[in-house]
Amino acid sequence: MTALEHSAEPGYDAAVVDLLGAMACAELLAFERLAYDATMAPTIDDKAELARMAVAEFNHHTALRARLVELGADPSAAMEPFVDSLTELHRRTTPADWLEGLVKAYVGDGLAAEFYREISRHLDAATRDLVLRVLADTGHSSFVVPRVRAAIAADARVAGRLALWGRRLVGEIMTQAQRLAGEREALASLIIGGTGPDGRDREGIDLAEIARMLGRLTEGHGARMADLGLDA
Amino acid sequence: MTALEHSAEPGYDAAVVDLLGAMACAELLAFERLAYDATMAPTIDDKAELARMAVAEFNHHTALRARLVELGADPSAAMEPFVDSLTELHRRTTPADWLEGLVKAYVGDGLAAEFYREISRHLDAATRDLVLRVLADTGHSSFVVPRVRAAIAADARVAGRLALWGRRLVGEIMTQAQRLAGEREALASLIIGGTGPDGRDREGIDLAEIARMLGRLTEGHGARMADLGLDA
Repeated sequence: MTALEHSAEPGYDAAVVDLLGAMACAELLAFERLAYDATMAPTIDDKAELARMAVAEFNHHTALRARLVELGADPSAAMEPFVDSLTELHRRTTPADWLEGLVKAYVGDGLAAEFYREISRHLDAATRDLVLRVLADTGHSSFVVPRVRAAIAADARVAGRLALWGRRLVGEIMTQAQRLAGEREALASLIIGGTGPDGRDREGIDLAEIARMLGRLTEGHGARMADLGLDA
Repeated sequence: MTALEHSAEPGYDAAVVDLLGAMACAELLAFERLAYDATMAPTIDDKAELARMAVAEFNHHTALRARLVELGADPSAAMEPFVDSLTELHRRTTPADWLEGLVKAYVGDGLAAEFYREISRHLDAATRDLVLRVLADTGHSSFVVPRVRAAIAADARVAGRLALWGRRLVGEIMTQAQRLAGEREALASLIIGGTGPDGRDREGIDLAEIARMLGRLTEGHGARMADLGLDA
């Protein structure tokens, strides 16, 4: 594990492999679901926009996979623990139509970006660089905003339905995230900065820090719903 | 239409826009269907392989779209005439399982490559360069070969079912191609070299040349089925 040579803590190395495995798996499934949702596009140009976003997710997957290989980990084994719960998350949040697909793409892209920003604060330099590179390449979902706003302008009832959908999405995502955090303690500890590359280990999870992070994520989600013209 | 300045024939320009529109549409739908078929993958690595192929198709779509813009054409309008028949083709050839998806990916990728090779002989230099660049980036389907062969080795009955599927695929593709050729005469004429950038126009379609091209495509298809261990 040459790339983690500054790590003073074996728990940190395992947690980083877990984190990269979770991200690589999430990006691959995001690719797959966005590509599937693109089948509902009303025009060929809309289809191409969502497809472009899917391709960006796949490129992130490829970068994360390469980093796992660099760390001496088996990417397939690193992703495996996350396949079922992330597949289940997508199954529970399958959009019923194009507009629900757009809102999911926007909300999901935004939450992923914030998650990457949060986690980057607790990582060794090489892993942080990768996460920030992936983060810099998110935001392909801005095409969603005028489309959702136009749909609401054309039919105000759409706003109520999509607001409900947005709340359902964030609820399902938070539920699965909590379930995963319970199952993968080292990963959860890494995410909130309890396990660091400096060997610092606060022994257990800081509940106040979790609450602050959830607060920031919820606030960001509210801002994105507002972008779309929706109540959070 | 600066990039077609060597064209002596207005019919050629329109046919090239038609060709690029058909290819751009086909590549985008191939992306979408491969990504969808990736949902049937038995492992996360298999999923990533088919996803990688889908991403290559999307990159081709992007290159073709850019060329349409260069030619002063509206990519969306250029693709539009092909959306319904290509969507219908995919609907009629939806794989029932992962192995059928693999065979479709391999057969489709191979036929597309041969089609690009055929058509490149009749194009102006700039369009030919683009088509050859796309062609050089096909062939991401070779991962299919060991997987299909392993499935046949594990259960010999699989070979009969997949051979039938391969015949069905090529039959549906040829049927839709003939229908399209009937509807888009300028395009059909371009494909077989009846309309060239030198202004040559043989007035009508050379049936012997069509037969020779179909012969070459069928031969290539047979070779690819043999790669997979299947009777054509």
